[in-house]
Amino acid sequence: MRVIFNEEMKQVADDLKSMTDYIEKAIVLAGKALLENDIEAAQQLIDNDSIIDGLEVSIIDRCVVMLAKQNPVATDLRVVVSSMRLASTFERMGDLARHIGETARRTYPNSAITNELKDTFAQMQAFTADVANRLSGILEKHDTETAKQIIENDSKLNALHNSVFALVTGDEWTGTRQQVIDTVLLSRFYERFGDHAVSVARRLVYIVSGFDPAMDPGNDDDND
Amino acid sequence: MRVIFNEEMKQVADDLKSMTDYIEKAIVLAGKALLENDIEAAQQLIDNDSIIDGLEVSIIDRCVVMLAKQNPVATDLRVVVSSMRLASTFERMGDLARHIGETARRTYPNSAITNELKDTFAQMQAFTADVANRLSGILEKHDTETAKQIIENDSKLNALHNSVFALVTGDEWTGTRQQVIDTVLLSRFYERFGDHAVSVARRLVYIVSGFDPAMDPGNDDDND
Repeated sequence: MRVIFNEEMKQVADDLKSMTDYIEKAIVLAGKALLENDIEAAQQLIDNDSIIDGLEVSIIDRCVVMLAKQNPVATDLRVVVSSMRLASTFERMGDLARHIGETARRTYPNSAITNELKDTFAQMQAFTADVANRLSGILEKHDTETAKQIIENDSKLNALHNSVFALVTGDEWTGTRQQVIDTVLLSRFYERFGDHAVSVARRLVYIVSGFDPAMDPGNDDDND
Repeated sequence: MRVIFNEEMKQVADDLKSMTDYIEKAIVLAGKALLENDIEAAQQLIDNDSIIDGLEVSIIDRCVVMLAKQNPVATDLRVVVSSMRLASTFERMGDLARHIGETARRTYPNSAITNELKDTFAQMQAFTADVANRLSGILEKHDTETAKQIIENDSKLNALHNSVFALVTGDEWTGTRQQVIDTVLLSRFYERFGDHAVSVARRLVYIVSGFDPAMDPGNDDDND
């Protein structure tokens, strides 16, 4: 049984890794769509989302089968349950990247954001792309140091999110009300993407701690 | 074992019912906070959110213990897994109601929304409060007819959400840019609350269908 469990768990881990690869790809494409007006990137991002959705379904199905056939207990059981929750969080991160692509596609050939915001969004983009890039590493290598960095650094993304609001309500603002709407939602998509990355990092720290209750991430989504 | 499983499952069902009661209370308080400038309602809503969070943690813990000790299979197993996912969805619905209360508290004693939007938000409020009220019924009585109505009616909430955008970008609009921001986010909170209710309804239909794959709700959050 143990061998089968390990093999099945390896497959789940591979699928989770695959999800993080697609999420990284998605947020990179989102940046191209939004900051470089790349309509093909937007379309590819939107098309790829169904792959991410499919991986979530497949991971959860596989976990349910493992629960039924192998009755994992203790740490094994918590790894299975955590894997299901990670898959759902990754799926939502994919959706958020897709929303950025959809906004860029809708406003094309115009940019969804005004020039005065480009720099701030470029920073949000760089930040979230970097976080997405680290996710697969922290999953594969159980790298808690990087996970802790992601948790600590989240305030930077929140600060960028707040500075977007300050720009949009400031005296220098020249955009339309539609651009205010798009900007606020885009900024929220980036901020939520970051929040989910933090919840992934917390879950990872909890797994590596051997499910120490003091590290329990509790509910994933404090901010939605 | 069967008796223990049924008893444990009854406790999970009671806790889920409790979550839906708190969610209904939360969205009703959100409406008072937003539409009647009721600061005490806002505060009570914000304070109550930790109860909802605690119920999610407790339901998931209980489900993990059931998985470990009783090795449920087939339908029982899927009910346990679905219960965990429902608890997470309810937790997010509580967060969304809380965000409405937080916005109302921040703008108090002023209203977060302008007079021209009151009617539309009153409709969103009535819609989501009604949906929240039905949730506990569909869970308790496995009422698939009501669940299907929730799924079908969701387009009404989306239409209201879109009409908010039309008002905010229209010629009649007199609000500030800060009010544009608050309005857009508030509308999104209501719309997301409705989306989650739809995902709950779909999951319920799936449970009652005996987990017919054709009814599989797949990933919960198409829109986050």
